[in-house]
Amino acid sequence: MVNEKVKIIEVEDKKPKPDPNGLMFGRHFTDYMFTMDYSTELGWHEARIVPYEAITLDPASMIFHYGQTVFEGLKAYRTEDERVLLFRPDKNIERLNQSSERLSIPKVDNEQVLDYLLQFISLEKDWVPSSEGTSLYIRPFIIATEPHLGLSPSSTYKLIVILSPVGSYYPEGINPVSIFVEESYVRAVKGGTGTAKTAGNYSASYIAQKKASNNGFSQVLWLDALEKRYVEEVGSMNVFFKINGEIITPALNGSILEGITRMSAIELMKEWGLTVTERRITIEEVVKAAKTGELEEIFGTGTAAVISPVGLLQWKDESITINHRQTGPLAKKLYDTLTGIQTGKLPDPFGWTVVVK
Amino acid sequence: MVNEKVKIIEVEDKKPKPDPNGLMFGRHFTDYMFTMDYSTELGWHEARIVPYEAITLDPASMIFHYGQTVFEGLKAYRTEDERVLLFRPDKNIERLNQSSERLSIPKVDNEQVLDYLLQFISLEKDWVPSSEGTSLYIRPFIIATEPHLGLSPSSTYKLIVILSPVGSYYPEGINPVSIFVEESYVRAVKGGTGTAKTAGNYSASYIAQKKASNNGFSQVLWLDALEKRYVEEVGSMNVFFKINGEIITPALNGSILEGITRMSAIELMKEWGLTVTERRITIEEVVKAAKTGELEEIFGTGTAAVISPVGLLQWKDESITINHRQTGPLAKKLYDTLTGIQTGKLPDPFGWTVVVK
Repeated sequence: MVNEKVKIIEVEDKKPKPDPNGLMFGRHFTDYMFTMDYSTELGWHEARIVPYEAITLDPASMIFHYGQTVFEGLKAYRTEDERVLLFRPDKNIERLNQSSERLSIPKVDNEQVLDYLLQFISLEKDWVPSSEGTSLYIRPFIIATEPHLGLSPSSTYKLIVILSPVGSYYPEGINPVSIFVEESYVRAVKGGTGTAKTAGNYSASYIAQKKASNNGFSQVLWLDALEKRYVEEVGSMNVFFKINGEIITPALNGSILEGITRMSAIELMKEWGLTVTERRITIEEVVKAAKTGELEEIFGTGTAAVISPVGLLQWKDESITINHRQTGPLAKKLYDTLTGIQTGKLPDPFGWTVVVK
Repeated sequence: MVNEKVKIIEVEDKKPKPDPNGLMFGRHFTDYMFTMDYSTELGWHEARIVPYEAITLDPASMIFHYGQTVFEGLKAYRTEDERVLLFRPDKNIERLNQSSERLSIPKVDNEQVLDYLLQFISLEKDWVPSSEGTSLYIRPFIIATEPHLGLSPSSTYKLIVILSPVGSYYPEGINPVSIFVEESYVRAVKGGTGTAKTAGNYSASYIAQKKASNNGFSQVLWLDALEKRYVEEVGSMNVFFKINGEIITPALNGSILEGITRMSAIELMKEWGLTVTERRITIEEVVKAAKTGELEEIFGTGTAAVISPVGLLQWKDESITINHRQTGPLAKKLYDTLTGIQTGKLPDPFGWTVVVK
C-alpha cells in the first residue's frame, strides 16, 4: 500500500506564516490537515489531505463521552541546507499502535501511515521554521466517532494529523526547572492507561500541576500510585538522575510512558560509554544522594522540551538544589547532541532522521 | 439567575419517534439539544436550546488531545398519569461539579443548571416513552474547546445536554449477569480520576471487558489497584454483597465513583431496617462466604440498569454461583422500589423525584 499518492483537496487562501521569532507552542496551525477514516467494513480508508478546518461531529460521538482516543507528538526540523528532517517517526507510529491496542482502537498500517505523513509534511514544507530552536510540531490523533451512548468500542474512527510551527518549549532556553514531588494525586498505575498516550492521562494531571504552581514550582514529580516512593515521571516527561557517575532512569514498569527521547537519550549515553541503569528509584534515594553530594544532575526528556534540566526539588519539607541550579554538563551534552542530530547540524550515526522529500 | 427563560431556536422538521418497544440504549436522539458556553471573561453564558445537530470544533480543541471532559447520566420517566419525573437530578449536578473540580473545569451554578434542565425536558416531553422499562436518558457533558496544544486547562468549554429515549438496559429483563474478576487491568487508583465521571475512565475498561466477554462473562469485577484484593466496582456499576443477612458495599475510598443509585439503595435498605455496611471487602471474603453458604446475593447498581443481579462469579479457578443464578429477593425489592418511585407507581417518601412542568 506504500507510495500511493494521497488525494489532496487544495486550500483556496493560504494563511500568512507567523513570525518565527515569536512562536508559541501549539497556537498556530498550517494550511492543511491529513485525515483518514475507519469503519468496520472498510478498515482504515480514504486517506486525504484537506484544508485545515473545523471538524463536525455528532454530539453523541463516543470521543466526547468515553474518551476512546490516542495521540502522538513529533517534530520536523529544517536543516541549514534547507532539508526537512523527521526524528524517528517510525517509533511514534509504533507507539500510536501500542496506545491504540490499550484503548481498543484498530491499528494502522505503520509503513502506510509513515508514507502518508511524509507526503503531508512534504506538502507543508514551507511551514517548517528555520530559526534556532524552532520546528514543526506534528500531532497525529485518533478519535472514536460512532454516535452511541454505550460502553463498547466505537465502530468508526478518524485519524487526523495537524501541524503547528513551534518555538522552543521553554522560550528562555534550557534553564533548569523547579519540581514539586506530588504525594496525593497520581499520574498512572500498573493495569491502567499510563503506558498509552491517551487524552485522559493528561487533563488528570492539571490539578496537581496547579498545586505545584501555587507552591511556586514549575513541574510535578510523580511517584508510583502504590507506595508513593518510586519516581515515575516529571510533568509529562521521563526523568533521569545522575548519581555518583551512574545514570538512573525509572524502568518501564507498566505505568510509565515509553518516551522516544528517553529511548534515544539512553542509546546515546550508552554509546558514550556511560553507565545507564533502568531500575526502580525511590525519592528517598534521590534526596539522600543530594545530601551526600552524590546527586550530580536531574533532567527530564520529552519531544516538546527535548531535555529539561531540574534545578530544584521539593519533597515534603526537603528542598534540594541540584548542580547549583545550573544546567549540568550531561543534560547540556544530550540537548546539544539530540537537537544537533534532529536539525542536521551533527552527523546521524544511528540513522534516526528521515528526510522529507 | 433561576427561572430565566432559555432561548430556543426552533427545529424545522421534527423527527419521527422510534418504536417504543424496540428501543436500544443510546442510539436515538431527540429533536433538540441544550448548550451553554464558558469563557474566562463571561463565565458560563449563552444557555440555549437548539436543534440536535453536529457540533463543529477546531481539530486542535483540547478535548481531542488532553481529555478535559466530564459527564453525567440520569433519566426522565413517564408516569401512568402522564407526568414526567426526574430522579434526584440535584445529585447529578452536584456530582458533575465534583467531577469538574477533579478535571480543573469551571463549575456550573447548580440551581441554574437544574432549572435549564427542567425547561429542556419540558420542551422535549413528548420524547419520554411510556412502555414498561423505558425512559428518556439525559446526558449532560462538558468539553474543553480551546484550540491549543499545551498542557494547561482550557480557557473555553461547552456544556451540552443530549436526550435519548431508551429501553431497558438489559432487554431480557433483570436476569442475573455473570462476572469475571479482573486481575491485570485496573479501573482506577486513589489519587487518580476514579471518583470523577470523566471520559477516559470508560474507554480504559474496554480491553478488560473484551477479555471477560471472550471468557464467556458479561461484566468485569474490578479489584483495587494496589493489592488486587479489595472489590471496587462491577462493570460501570457500584456493587453490593448480602452475606449472612448483612449488606456490604465497598466504602468510597478515593477510587470508586459515588453512584446515585448506590446512595439511594443504601438509604432505602436502611429505611427497611437492614444492616448496610460501607467497608473494604476482599474477593477472598466473598468467595469464602459463597463456600460456607453465607453469600446470599450480589448485585450492581447504576443509572442505566438500576439494579443488576449477579448470578455467577469467576475468580482465578473459582467459579461461584449466587442464589442459584436467580434474581435474589433483595435485588428484586430494590429494583421494584426504585423503579416504582422513579415512574410514580409507588409513593416517594424521600422526595427524590422532581416533576417536569
